[in-house]
Amino acid sequence: MSHNFSFQSLAECSQTKARAGVFMTPHGPVETPRFMPVGTLANVKTVTPDQLSSTGAQMILSNTYHLHLQPGEKIVAGGGGLHKFMGWNGPMLTDSGGFQVFSLSEMRKISEDGVTFRSPHDGQIIHLTPERSIEIQNTLGADVIMAFDECPPYPATREDVQAATDRTYRWLERCISFHQRSDQALFGIVQGGVYLDLRIQAAEALAELDLPGYAIGGVSVGEPPELMADIVRTTAPLLPPEKPRYLMGVGTYREMAIAIASGVDLFDCVIPTRWARHGTAIVQGERWNLKNAKFREDYAPLDETCSCYACANFSRAYISHLVRSQEILGYTLLSIHNITELIRFTQKIRQAILGDRFTREFAQWLN
Amino acid sequence: MSHNFSFQSLAECSQTKARAGVFMTPHGPVETPRFMPVGTLANVKTVTPDQLSSTGAQMILSNTYHLHLQPGEKIVAGGGGLHKFMGWNGPMLTDSGGFQVFSLSEMRKISEDGVTFRSPHDGQIIHLTPERSIEIQNTLGADVIMAFDECPPYPATREDVQAATDRTYRWLERCISFHQRSDQALFGIVQGGVYLDLRIQAAEALAELDLPGYAIGGVSVGEPPELMADIVRTTAPLLPPEKPRYLMGVGTYREMAIAIASGVDLFDCVIPTRWARHGTAIVQGERWNLKNAKFREDYAPLDETCSCYACANFSRAYISHLVRSQEILGYTLLSIHNITELIRFTQKIRQAILGDRFTREFAQWLN
Repeated sequence: MSHNFSFQSLAECSQTKARAGVFMTPHGPVETPRFMPVGTLANVKTVTPDQLSSTGAQMILSNTYHLHLQPGEKIVAGGGGLHKFMGWNGPMLTDSGGFQVFSLSEMRKISEDGVTFRSPHDGQIIHLTPERSIEIQNTLGADVIMAFDECPPYPATREDVQAATDRTYRWLERCISFHQRSDQALFGIVQGGVYLDLRIQAAEALAELDLPGYAIGGVSVGEPPELMADIVRTTAPLLPPEKPRYLMGVGTYREMAIAIASGVDLFDCVIPTRWARHGTAIVQGERWNLKNAKFREDYAPLDETCSCYACANFSRAYISHLVRSQEILGYTLLSIHNITELIRFTQKIRQAILGDRFTREFAQWLN
Repeated sequence: MSHNFSFQSLAECSQTKARAGVFMTPHGPVETPRFMPVGTLANVKTVTPDQLSSTGAQMILSNTYHLHLQPGEKIVAGGGGLHKFMGWNGPMLTDSGGFQVFSLSEMRKISEDGVTFRSPHDGQIIHLTPERSIEIQNTLGADVIMAFDECPPYPATREDVQAATDRTYRWLERCISFHQRSDQALFGIVQGGVYLDLRIQAAEALAELDLPGYAIGGVSVGEPPELMADIVRTTAPLLPPEKPRYLMGVGTYREMAIAIASGVDLFDCVIPTRWARHGTAIVQGERWNLKNAKFREDYAPLDETCSCYACANFSRAYISHLVRSQEILGYTLLSIHNITELIRFTQKIRQAILGDRFTREFAQWLN
């Protein structure tokens, strides 16, 4: 690992593989386990960097595919790189664009070299390769950058998944060769779909590459919850314990608790901000629709145990009014609360691991 | 005037009728002249109360008509009144609903008693009278409440405007009789359309009622700018100098400067937030469309002389990117800037009046 990065496990659960650690980056520490908010287009939707800091956010994500299309990485670099451009001085990660190309783009053509697709913005032909993805991410300048991977949809045949997993490995080797900036840590991504033997092969092969961090990709793509749990339980322990482990695209209480018990450290998910824009609050792991009539005259805060800006200052009745009126402030307040809530969940687990109380205090989320 | 309210003129311009004063309310002082942001539905669109405070906002507006329809004044009262419900502890004003009924409602029927119309929410028949408007405003609990007035559209015949102006006066008498809360100041509204003799009659009649404050209504409804200036120049000086004067719905640099020179103290307008949602910044009185190609790689702040949160932390290029991507954060940042900009303009005029430099420093806006 580069001198700019390190991972240290501070405590380990006596009954599971859960661990509490610190991942050091050039922009500061990330206390793990921890949920990372998603800021697709160089902003976490509806919240300012100040508001984001107040949620307890440490590391956040941004999106290579979307930023390449708009505004383009050169404009971000012209603004001093992603941190300065968007006003976030903490740790940051960019995904590689692989997932988005495979899930969002139409008319894509995959070859050994890379992927060709039409920009949904202007119809322009775009060719994305492992080298190009790393080049864009080097230009954007996040602390952690992700290898360019092929992420097959669910369901997919064993043959298709095997081919994608093998190609992802070859692409990873090209990413490693091309990557130049020592102030950016390149994480490899384990694919393998729901085929556990493929996951095992992929994880073991990646582990030998001694990367600064590892991700489990290709989950939360439509597979049943039990299969995701199987994938994580099988894969995570095979990844080097002295490196951070990141489960991509995951963010419910139960999924995170189970993954943490398997040794995962980092999570990201769009649900706190997406649900907010649908008028939904996450309260103690439950989903509440604020348009529900019962909230019209409910003057309690969303969650009395939460100290976020929304809970400290506003009532359910007020947020319900804003959401009914389609006032953007309602989505902002719900985003602040939902992000705080998911980070708080991972912070509480961290404290429990440090005190070896994880399985006792979080039993309801581990079954 | 109730013991909870007072207006004091601290300085007067030697060449115009402009004055710098302080309007005291139960929720604190308003330093005049001053622009008041509009928070129609118990929130200033896209900004939190904290962000609003940072713009220099002192007094803000909310809307009787809209709040009566959603969430209803009883729900606001149940939440502790408008201040507590929306988390704004500074001075607040509610309009009477008159303007909205006449400009927004279809199928309205006007009688001496009041106005009947269908709710655009659910088609329910609503009857709004002077008494009902005051009752709703008493229930909402803003510091300043407005008389229920008839606001004819432009153009309108002299006969129609005369009838509306006379009825507005009779309705004002009913508002005064019905209003009970001494912690709320009832302002009368001068109507009269573009007919200066009607304006003079109305202003003189209202001045005799010794109200805690006076507004000039029925401008910015489509009349040419020269006519608005004539109306303000004719009407404002007839209103009692020891009371605050409020020009409703006005908010461009030129309109405010001319009105201040005529002795007006308070302004409100939706343009800073509405323009923000169209991707438009107000910079030194100019309108800038942030989607314009020239801003794509412009890394300067919107306005280098502005210390608002948006200008202190972000570039034109970044805000342009957000606006092009239709990211809500772009509208939030532009709203913060635009509100700051208009308040700053009135604050600068206030300082100039205090130093008797108003006509010299603001000559470009007074011609």
